[in-house]
Amino acid sequence: MRMVDLIEKKVNGGILSDEEIAYIVKGFTDGTIPDYQMAAFQMAVVFQGMTDRETADLTMAMMHSGDVVDLSELRGVKVDKHSTGGVGDTTTLVIAPLVAACGGTVAKMSGRGLGHTGGTLDKLESIPGVCIEQPMDRFKKIVNEIGVAVIGQTGNLVPADKKMYALRDVTATVRSIPLIASSIMSKKLAAGTDAIVLDVKTGTGAFMSTVEEAEKLAHLMVSIGKLVGRECVAIITDMNQPLGLAVGNALEVREAVELLSGKIPAGDPLYEVCMLLGTHMMILSKLASTEVEAREKLETALSSGAGLKKLREMIAAEGGDAA
Amino acid sequence: MRMVDLIEKKVNGGILSDEEIAYIVKGFTDGTIPDYQMAAFQMAVVFQGMTDRETADLTMAMMHSGDVVDLSELRGVKVDKHSTGGVGDTTTLVIAPLVAACGGTVAKMSGRGLGHTGGTLDKLESIPGVCIEQPMDRFKKIVNEIGVAVIGQTGNLVPADKKMYALRDVTATVRSIPLIASSIMSKKLAAGTDAIVLDVKTGTGAFMSTVEEAEKLAHLMVSIGKLVGRECVAIITDMNQPLGLAVGNALEVREAVELLSGKIPAGDPLYEVCMLLGTHMMILSKLASTEVEAREKLETALSSGAGLKKLREMIAAEGGDAA
Repeated sequence: MRMVDLIEKKVNGGILSDEEIAYIVKGFTDGTIPDYQMAAFQMAVVFQGMTDRETADLTMAMMHSGDVVDLSELRGVKVDKHSTGGVGDTTTLVIAPLVAACGGTVAKMSGRGLGHTGGTLDKLESIPGVCIEQPMDRFKKIVNEIGVAVIGQTGNLVPADKKMYALRDVTATVRSIPLIASSIMSKKLAAGTDAIVLDVKTGTGAFMSTVEEAEKLAHLMVSIGKLVGRECVAIITDMNQPLGLAVGNALEVREAVELLSGKIPAGDPLYEVCMLLGTHMMILSKLASTEVEAREKLETALSSGAGLKKLREMIAAEGGDAA
Repeated sequence: MRMVDLIEKKVNGGILSDEEIAYIVKGFTDGTIPDYQMAAFQMAVVFQGMTDRETADLTMAMMHSGDVVDLSELRGVKVDKHSTGGVGDTTTLVIAPLVAACGGTVAKMSGRGLGHTGGTLDKLESIPGVCIEQPMDRFKKIVNEIGVAVIGQTGNLVPADKKMYALRDVTATVRSIPLIASSIMSKKLAAGTDAIVLDVKTGTGAFMSTVEEAEKLAHLMVSIGKLVGRECVAIITDMNQPLGLAVGNALEVREAVELLSGKIPAGDPLYEVCMLLGTHMMILSKLASTEVEAREKLETALSSGAGLKKLREMIAAEGGDAA
């Protein structure tokens, strides 16, 4: 097999086999396929696309380029939540503790924020003392004890994605739906949870500027998840205005705390998106069977202060100042 | 200016300014723009194309990336001929001496053959003793004395093309008409002749497999030539069967000698293509005003043995065994 022939095949609109895709990912990761050939291939994908099957094969090949986390020793349904990112998104810091307070097992390994959006990790690190780089054993221990942990990606998770994304970033090949889907899903699948709620943001300030694009990405990611036997739900949320009013990492943490303290009313956009995502995490976790039941439980955990207590416990467990 | 923004512009179907194109060519040639960005850019051009104006700007920027030959001290109209290449094309070794025998000034600097086609240089080098690497002074001296020289590209001619072509070759971006046109024309223009006859081959075995593609390439190259004040004529010739019967470099030289010795009759495909190309070289060189007149003169030079004599003189001047 020669990389130049596989690029040519994609240029001509051909469909690559799983073997061919595995060859590309392995070769690029181990350095036998040079950057310039991968850059040309990724650009050909921007124009010619990939079938759902090709995208799933790409995701699998990327996922297996490094370690795959085994969370089987943790109790219950391990659930994760992923947002495609946007300014002012503090949903993780609200939902993760709330779902845990309802008995869920939220084991979230997050990547660094891309560009201006500032990921959840940056927000957590704005809290004095928090160390988001926890070893795997410690991560599992925290999740088992308090039901929730949010840490940075640990170990050698999806090295193919690190290299591929770095290259896409400087070659104007970021905006390709199959490449975005495989990048997100390879990391989520390697992180080892049983169920994933995907929050695909659309509108100004988001990755996907139109609803059509967001829907395509959402469907593609769910179908990849299904293909490998993970429960996946995707929700499209509006970013035309930032979800929270406070923009900036430290401010956004404060906003999450305010919501968990009951100071942000139902009907507020951030409140509603959190409830929507949390509801589906509850259902995937088998902690509720209807959306109404799930929302009631989440709101009880909110008003009782159990959610805020969980956030404090998690921050303390990760070394932070819980005050 | 940032290369990633220029790639993005082309991905989105934008038209680059002459300044932007010059920035890309200069940066890639001097190494400040890395291979992977150029590979992504070239792939974007494969899908989005370039306007004639962009292609002319690219050609100029490439031409000025290295030395530009000054042939002004040579007598008469300096004429060159270029074929897009194909198996069994021996036209140069027939026409160049024939036109010189009619009083023309044929100063041809050739590139190495690409892939299987075997360029004119490879054919010349199959003659014992021939050295196609002649210094510029010696090249000019040969042309001034005997009216014809065919040598390898000398000096630092179009370094941008060397790098760009090497990259295209391994990234499946060879088949882009604007990239092919700028690659050919930048070298022809840098080689300094006043007039160029372009032989664009089409059909199986050629670069351009359809007549439509060949016509596009032909028009584009002529328009680039006009834009910079050089006389250009392009002729589309059929490659569905190799022009000569003998395939292989040494055999092809023998076939050229046979034609110049009068052993290949009018009506033979190789004979006719040579006459067609030679006719236009004669007209561009102001040695004939009509095609009929040009052909008569060429056929006289053929039947008198003057053409063969010129070929022998050129081979001897380049160190070869003229027998």
